[in-house]
Amino acid sequence: MNLPEDKDILRGDIRSVARAIRAVEDDWPGSRALLVRLFPHAGKALTLGITGPPGAGKSTLVDRLTTHFRKAGKTVGVIAVDPTSPFSGGAILGDRIRMQNHATDDGVFIRSMATRGALGGLSATTAAALLVLDASSKDILIVETVGVGQDEVDIASEADIAVVVLVPGLGDEVQALKAGIMEIADLFVVNKADRDGADRLASEIAMMLSLTGETKGDRPPVVRTVATSSQGIEELASTIDEVRARRETSGALAARRRERLLRQFETQVDALLRERVRRRIDALDPSQHLRERVQNRTIDPFSAADETLAGLDPAKP
Amino acid sequence: MNLPEDKDILRGDIRSVARAIRAVEDDWPGSRALLVRLFPHAGKALTLGITGPPGAGKSTLVDRLTTHFRKAGKTVGVIAVDPTSPFSGGAILGDRIRMQNHATDDGVFIRSMATRGALGGLSATTAAALLVLDASSKDILIVETVGVGQDEVDIASEADIAVVVLVPGLGDEVQALKAGIMEIADLFVVNKADRDGADRLASEIAMMLSLTGETKGDRPPVVRTVATSSQGIEELASTIDEVRARRETSGALAARRRERLLRQFETQVDALLRERVRRRIDALDPSQHLRERVQNRTIDPFSAADETLAGLDPAKP
Repeated sequence: MNLPEDKDILRGDIRSVARAIRAVEDDWPGSRALLVRLFPHAGKALTLGITGPPGAGKSTLVDRLTTHFRKAGKTVGVIAVDPTSPFSGGAILGDRIRMQNHATDDGVFIRSMATRGALGGLSATTAAALLVLDASSKDILIVETVGVGQDEVDIASEADIAVVVLVPGLGDEVQALKAGIMEIADLFVVNKADRDGADRLASEIAMMLSLTGETKGDRPPVVRTVATSSQGIEELASTIDEVRARRETSGALAARRRERLLRQFETQVDALLRERVRRRIDALDPSQHLRERVQNRTIDPFSAADETLAGLDPAKP
Repeated sequence: MNLPEDKDILRGDIRSVARAIRAVEDDWPGSRALLVRLFPHAGKALTLGITGPPGAGKSTLVDRLTTHFRKAGKTVGVIAVDPTSPFSGGAILGDRIRMQNHATDDGVFIRSMATRGALGGLSATTAAALLVLDASSKDILIVETVGVGQDEVDIASEADIAVVVLVPGLGDEVQALKAGIMEIADLFVVNKADRDGADRLASEIAMMLSLTGETKGDRPPVVRTVATSSQGIEELASTIDEVRARRETSGALAARRRERLLRQFETQVDALLRERVRRRIDALDPSQHLRERVQNRTIDPFSAADETLAGLDPAKP
């Protein structure tokens, strides 16, 4: 569990970056201090959140976008938040498949992150991994999540630009699920746009957007792609750049980054307190008597929590 | 924001139960004390967690199971955790559609719960709603979630019996997503079993289960249904009952309930502390100076959190 050297992370050495991310993900000793040291070096990258229903082709789209950014001379870091496989223990799609087109390219770093068992919560872990990548001098950070599930949608919505990927022809309930992510989009992608129903989907989106009351110029643009054949990727990249420029001018980008930092601060306060409280609960309840009572239903969880806090001075370490 | 009478909740009066759930969901004054008073009346219901990918037909299955349980003379409470619609503000599928077959039946209570914006987190809110329903003398509680997203899967996995619903013929990535929920299943349902690929899906599940090393009798059973025509619902209900009986005998059911109570206790401690801390942060940082520094990146979120806790005596209210 040796931490990598700061300087190796900062220069983007792939093994050191990978080890640093593992360290913050698994909460190795010293990993928090590492994040503190890396923080001043971060804050320069543009962060894209890419989300959408299962089957929308997000990982292919991310792959093609990565290729595009690399051709434009930009370095890219990808955090793909994948559902965890119960058997392999690893994330389903896995780094290996995702890496196949970029395996020999030092300017690309790709990491799958498991959705379950993330210490300190998925959101905190993803933020920490993005901080490492940002400090490692990546120009573009992409965080890809499935657009279902509260944490997953939140993570994408906190990016500088949230891209929502939809596809024609998913089932009714799947279409309904989309609605939960419509509101976070700064940009829509209709992927698999060569399929039947692409026009209808695009006009459905336009109609929903027209209901928001925003003037047309302020509404999120809609880009059509066929990621598998790289169709529309160039247009997507230039639209992303337009959205970035517009949000920079309007101050929306800066505001979102400020929001994100505030959330990270609050999450850290929560995490520190929770850790402190857990230690104090152990100290106050060494025989686990209170927890035993909770489990036997001789006290309700609410009153037990009151009792814990009454006997607690979390100001002490 | 008047709370309903305890006695009306306990006798299962639908309007009172609905109001109580709204109260705990929106954190009305007195709602926590209400939960404390209801707690001794709860703990008798059997809780089913029903989860699966979007499009698996979960809500229809829940509807048919409810009808079945009602015919068997059992009262039923349903909490459906639905993705939120950005435009209506309400949950997508909605209580109205879900209720249509049970609208005139006082023995059924159905409530959709929005996934976003739940105060105190989705898991705590769902647990509180289930506690109200349990105290209102429902025999069976069903909590239905989409099987994607950390919180959503956790909620289903904490039920007495976790039922994972799959369907043949979903896309590849959707199939991959399933894997994230395979491990929590106490029982599998292959729904839409009249479709092509049902046999293949059933044998895929069987094969995955054979890899777990459990003896055949201990593996989760697999039931085929066509929920739309109520096919297999009777078998599903009797399989649920067998699983319940087996888990009762083995002590697994009691163990899970004890686990659930412990989690609720910890969640409550966290919630109380977080509230206390938020008040203290405001008191310590009335000019929002520290938060301003975080947002300006003149201090990192980690060090800012340390600073907050150093100046904090959360033992004080």
